[in-house]
Amino acid sequence: MAKFEPVTDPAGLLAFTVSAIRPADRVAAGGADARQGRLTKPPGALGRLESLATRIAGITGLERPRLDQRLVIVAAGDHGVTAQGVSAYPAEVTAQMVANFLAGGAAINVLAKHAGARVRVVDAGVRGEIPDHSDLLRLRLGPGTDDISRGPAMSRALAERSLAEGIALFERERTADGIQIVALGEMGIGNSTSAAAIIAATTGLAPRTVTGRGTGVDDAHFELKVAAVERALHVNQPDRMDGVGMLAALGGFEIGVLAGAYLAAAAARVPAVIDGVISSAAALIAAAIAPNAVDSFVASHLSVEPGHLAALRHLRLEPVLDLNMRLGEGSGAALAISLCVAACRLLDEMATFDEAGVSDSDAAVEPEA
Amino acid sequence: MAKFEPVTDPAGLLAFTVSAIRPADRVAAGGADARQGRLTKPPGALGRLESLATRIAGITGLERPRLDQRLVIVAAGDHGVTAQGVSAYPAEVTAQMVANFLAGGAAINVLAKHAGARVRVVDAGVRGEIPDHSDLLRLRLGPGTDDISRGPAMSRALAERSLAEGIALFERERTADGIQIVALGEMGIGNSTSAAAIIAATTGLAPRTVTGRGTGVDDAHFELKVAAVERALHVNQPDRMDGVGMLAALGGFEIGVLAGAYLAAAAARVPAVIDGVISSAAALIAAAIAPNAVDSFVASHLSVEPGHLAALRHLRLEPVLDLNMRLGEGSGAALAISLCVAACRLLDEMATFDEAGVSDSDAAVEPEA
Repeated sequence: MAKFEPVTDPAGLLAFTVSAIRPADRVAAGGADARQGRLTKPPGALGRLESLATRIAGITGLERPRLDQRLVIVAAGDHGVTAQGVSAYPAEVTAQMVANFLAGGAAINVLAKHAGARVRVVDAGVRGEIPDHSDLLRLRLGPGTDDISRGPAMSRALAERSLAEGIALFERERTADGIQIVALGEMGIGNSTSAAAIIAATTGLAPRTVTGRGTGVDDAHFELKVAAVERALHVNQPDRMDGVGMLAALGGFEIGVLAGAYLAAAAARVPAVIDGVISSAAALIAAAIAPNAVDSFVASHLSVEPGHLAALRHLRLEPVLDLNMRLGEGSGAALAISLCVAACRLLDEMATFDEAGVSDSDAAVEPEA
Repeated sequence: MAKFEPVTDPAGLLAFTVSAIRPADRVAAGGADARQGRLTKPPGALGRLESLATRIAGITGLERPRLDQRLVIVAAGDHGVTAQGVSAYPAEVTAQMVANFLAGGAAINVLAKHAGARVRVVDAGVRGEIPDHSDLLRLRLGPGTDDISRGPAMSRALAERSLAEGIALFERERTADGIQIVALGEMGIGNSTSAAAIIAATTGLAPRTVTGRGTGVDDAHFELKVAAVERALHVNQPDRMDGVGMLAALGGFEIGVLAGAYLAAAAARVPAVIDGVISSAAALIAAAIAPNAVDSFVASHLSVEPGHLAALRHLRLEPVLDLNMRLGEGSGAALAISLCVAACRLLDEMATFDEAGVSDSDAAVEPEA
């Protein structure tokens, strides 16, 4: 188990990080694009892999980026709103699944290993007991959030602290082992209700439109969930321009930690891969705090959760995978890491027409109609 | 350079292989499905990854299949129909790109390495000179096909031989190094015209509907290409029930070799991953010869070529990726190998609810509404 001193000046660390965030590097992206046009393939024939590599060049500021050091952060937290019957699973599953992550038996363990990424599990605020483990980062900002259908999830000070702790843990990991790409995943029974509320508050869409069935609730539970989201918006009246306030009102501790990690990744010019609907809600919080952070996001997959598409559209991001997944944990983002690595390897390792002595087409000279 | 004795009895080897092809193993697929229901995730939460693993279980006959030995076959051939101005690239690019494959500078080299797959390059019938190389399988069934817009691509005997040589090369590779999954890719300036003709003949769709811009032809070239496909169907009058005849009339040598490899893979219960539009045309030939072979196909990506979707629909296959690719070479199939491996690792390596001590939901007991 790793235990760290709490961040001493959360507001200061947050402000410092936000001030370091810059938009994408157009020069590097342009250089990557120009190189893709010289590689031994018809122009554009690698489709989304080309735009993905160009995006990552812009994020990193490197014409031929490498993604050798890969990290998946899985932040876990419990949610007071489970008292409203919004989930098909009992709340103790959060702690049980954290133990499963630490034992290596969950989907994210398999998929991170497949992608060559290490996994860091964060107890952002789980209610139940989690045994000590060397891979566990124990932040524990509280024993789960308060019920958002009856008031704010947490105080503004705790929201700021959850963001700052997310920044600090990203920076510790980056300093210790390096991070060239990061996937942001989560676990928390009830957190798709928080995510739906954040997405509704940000996009202005109706709660019913952006609320999904999460891990598989039936019709009756679904109605309870929509009602909980509606009440959360009514009692909290969140301001979509105030990311910290939205997080305090509607968010989970794990959502705050992830939003902080998104900001830290943006400041460090590291591509941050969004997973499913909860991860995308954390991305919305980060974007509300620092709009330029969006330039460093990569959308991985399209979840079956309706709020996910709404969130990605708001961020103007298009996912690279559409596999009907709805698991969370960072599972879709871990798969997408593999595609990002493939895209960057193509950009870096393919021969150019000149190098390979291959005749180019007219199409490479005159752009396609 | 590897050189082999020609197959002595092509018709006999083809008939023997076809007779060995069985439908998917429903018991193994059912066992895989049952196991997925016990893994620590909500039922169905891994979406297409679950159906992919179940499909591969049915193909291999194993409840927990492993895909450690991975092969990409890239078959190359030239096409007499290039005389009709159907391509944006000169025909010598086929031989140049084969040299690029052998030097390791092409997209498929990068993507196969990324997927942990070895690459075998086959000269099925390239017109130009290809220097000797230890990784080249030199079949060279002819110096390119005849112009399909003026008559058959090849004799029926040569069509049979190309299929038999595809079977033989798959079997040699399987015996020598093992194959647990294979991706079928190709290279051949002009071969998207052959593919469009095969797809039109098989599906009954109009040539204009299934003909695409290949490597990037302009409007004028596109009209020449549609006209060439229309004439190919008119002069050859292919019979969609006669796979060997369709291949002789419309196909390339590389398409025949790939179709043979599809049949050999089906007979050996090895998942065969379809790449783009030309690879799917070869799959249609294999399916016309042995309808049960389709059970062993896996559709990788959806190409921007319109004929690709038509072919996959005819085969009732749904691709797992949609990345606007249109390169061929096996590039999309190599990416999909990685997803197949991930899907099978999840099935094999994830903990069950019992093993992990995680509480199950009601949803796992009562199927979701």
